[in-house]
Amino acid sequence: MTPIKIAVTPGEPAGIGPDLIIKLAQESWQAQLVVFADGEILETRAKALGLPLTLLPYDASNPQVQPAGSLFIKQIDKAADVVAGTLDSENGLYVVETLRQACQANMEGDFHAVVTGPVHKGIINKAGVSFSGHTEFFAYQSNTIDVVMLLATEGLNVALATTHIPLEYVSRAITKERLHKVLHIINTDFKLKFGVRNPHIYVCGLNPHAGEDGHIGTEEIQTIIPALNELREEGLNITGPLPADTIFQPKYLEDADVVLAMYHDQGLPVLKYKGFGASVNITLGLPFIRTSVDHGTALDLAGHGNADPGSFRKALEKAIELAHHQQ
Amino acid sequence: MTPIKIAVTPGEPAGIGPDLIIKLAQESWQAQLVVFADGEILETRAKALGLPLTLLPYDASNPQVQPAGSLFIKQIDKAADVVAGTLDSENGLYVVETLRQACQANMEGDFHAVVTGPVHKGIINKAGVSFSGHTEFFAYQSNTIDVVMLLATEGLNVALATTHIPLEYVSRAITKERLHKVLHIINTDFKLKFGVRNPHIYVCGLNPHAGEDGHIGTEEIQTIIPALNELREEGLNITGPLPADTIFQPKYLEDADVVLAMYHDQGLPVLKYKGFGASVNITLGLPFIRTSVDHGTALDLAGHGNADPGSFRKALEKAIELAHHQQ
Repeated sequence: MTPIKIAVTPGEPAGIGPDLIIKLAQESWQAQLVVFADGEILETRAKALGLPLTLLPYDASNPQVQPAGSLFIKQIDKAADVVAGTLDSENGLYVVETLRQACQANMEGDFHAVVTGPVHKGIINKAGVSFSGHTEFFAYQSNTIDVVMLLATEGLNVALATTHIPLEYVSRAITKERLHKVLHIINTDFKLKFGVRNPHIYVCGLNPHAGEDGHIGTEEIQTIIPALNELREEGLNITGPLPADTIFQPKYLEDADVVLAMYHDQGLPVLKYKGFGASVNITLGLPFIRTSVDHGTALDLAGHGNADPGSFRKALEKAIELAHHQQ
Repeated sequence: MTPIKIAVTPGEPAGIGPDLIIKLAQESWQAQLVVFADGEILETRAKALGLPLTLLPYDASNPQVQPAGSLFIKQIDKAADVVAGTLDSENGLYVVETLRQACQANMEGDFHAVVTGPVHKGIINKAGVSFSGHTEFFAYQSNTIDVVMLLATEGLNVALATTHIPLEYVSRAITKERLHKVLHIINTDFKLKFGVRNPHIYVCGLNPHAGEDGHIGTEEIQTIIPALNELREEGLNITGPLPADTIFQPKYLEDADVVLAMYHDQGLPVLKYKGFGASVNITLGLPFIRTSVDHGTALDLAGHGNADPGSFRKALEKAIELAHHQQ
């Protein structure tokens, strides 16, 4: 069996992404971690951290697992030297190029998954590239129209029906069409990527108390309940809509493969609270596996050695776990 | 020192409220628990549960702590016999009368607090009484214009800037005036009722990532940040706005006396998850202490003996704890 091959993008070079992958490279992995980056950035950062690092050129024809203290590298040249903690728009295109090549390599089937470190959207946009996030970028690059954001931690998966939009617009964004698309993507990906035969999906209402029979908002009656009933008739295993302040109880969570929240702050506070710095962002709907850290670039910590690799570790572990379901 | 005196309303007589207070009466309490109810309802329910119960007539001139197996009773006659599990609108006015008298007794200073069991809004309204909830009822009865809902569990207090309104209306409901009122009530009550000298209040943003500098909604920039700055100038100890999916982290919670969420499902899922069936609802802004269970009437469990008194216990304990700060 060839080893699992993971494409890793460290993200913003001035942030903690390089620190984290260098830290994690200190141990051996039962997979081949191939970093899409400029090797010099990693070598310089490893020195700053006082950690040993051997860079091994990536050879697609010779898959190997990861020896401790080393990383395989797919060289992509930076545009400017990197100062840890200091953003430089000159490297904006470089960051996007690491993502583009990692995406393409996954599309071509050379890899089992891509794992992404944190990028800084502002500096990429300042470099003249319109960039609204990894998820949208990978969707575009892979000709995928609809994707779903999933956050995962031990014992809890939370998918989002809407993501980074103003709260004011959430009600309008929850349509039957959107719920059909989102729930089909979740159902399909939990079967194909997570290896769950008949995924049990718990769904939150939109309003407090899931609308309390129409007393607190009508979206449940007009949109959500009819959509879920249609999807149940198609065979999806759905429970809900349930109030968001009761759905995250052990009696439901033990039974749920995934909880669908209607919007960002309905689902993620409890997930992040439970995950405690070790949750993973997974993009459902893409033609390949993509996991990511759940945090930002933390520029002030870059190069100092005290950034916590917990989420990056979980992102790598989850990608490897999901990749095994594909083999 | 006279004992702490707590007015207890069991709420809907066909629900689990009577069961829970009867269960809790099996132990002794360092307080006088005076139940505002029809004694016969309690005696009948105690028999159904197979639990001993002695009802002691409440005598305002002779305060006594609670002996195990007994409850003090302030008799209020029911309108109809009660069948556990079956709502009867004939008793709608009776339920409201228990609340009215408990409120009045607290207003007159005869009690240190009121603790409420779950009511069923629908059946009260069916009885011809316009009733939108305990909180609103007590506010009206005590001539209080603005109140704030607080949910509390071990190590976490969450207050809400808006409560039971459709999600669609939340953005419009978050005004500078509302934030001023809510934060002043929280600040004052944490000083007076909770005995905290300089309450540290953490405040969530309204939008995902607290608006991300205006990229995901503008309410933070236009409303929330200016309001918080004004309140800081008045001397309030406020941190925020912070993203709701990072505010519930130990590093913040250790430091926070209370977290203000902008709306119901932003703050309560994580609180209920953490509280795990033992959180307490506290109404801030009233001229007396009021705590409540955080659950509903659970009609199907009434009279069967397996309803969990965890939240009612916490509501009593919290009321007693807060009452001590007043002595």
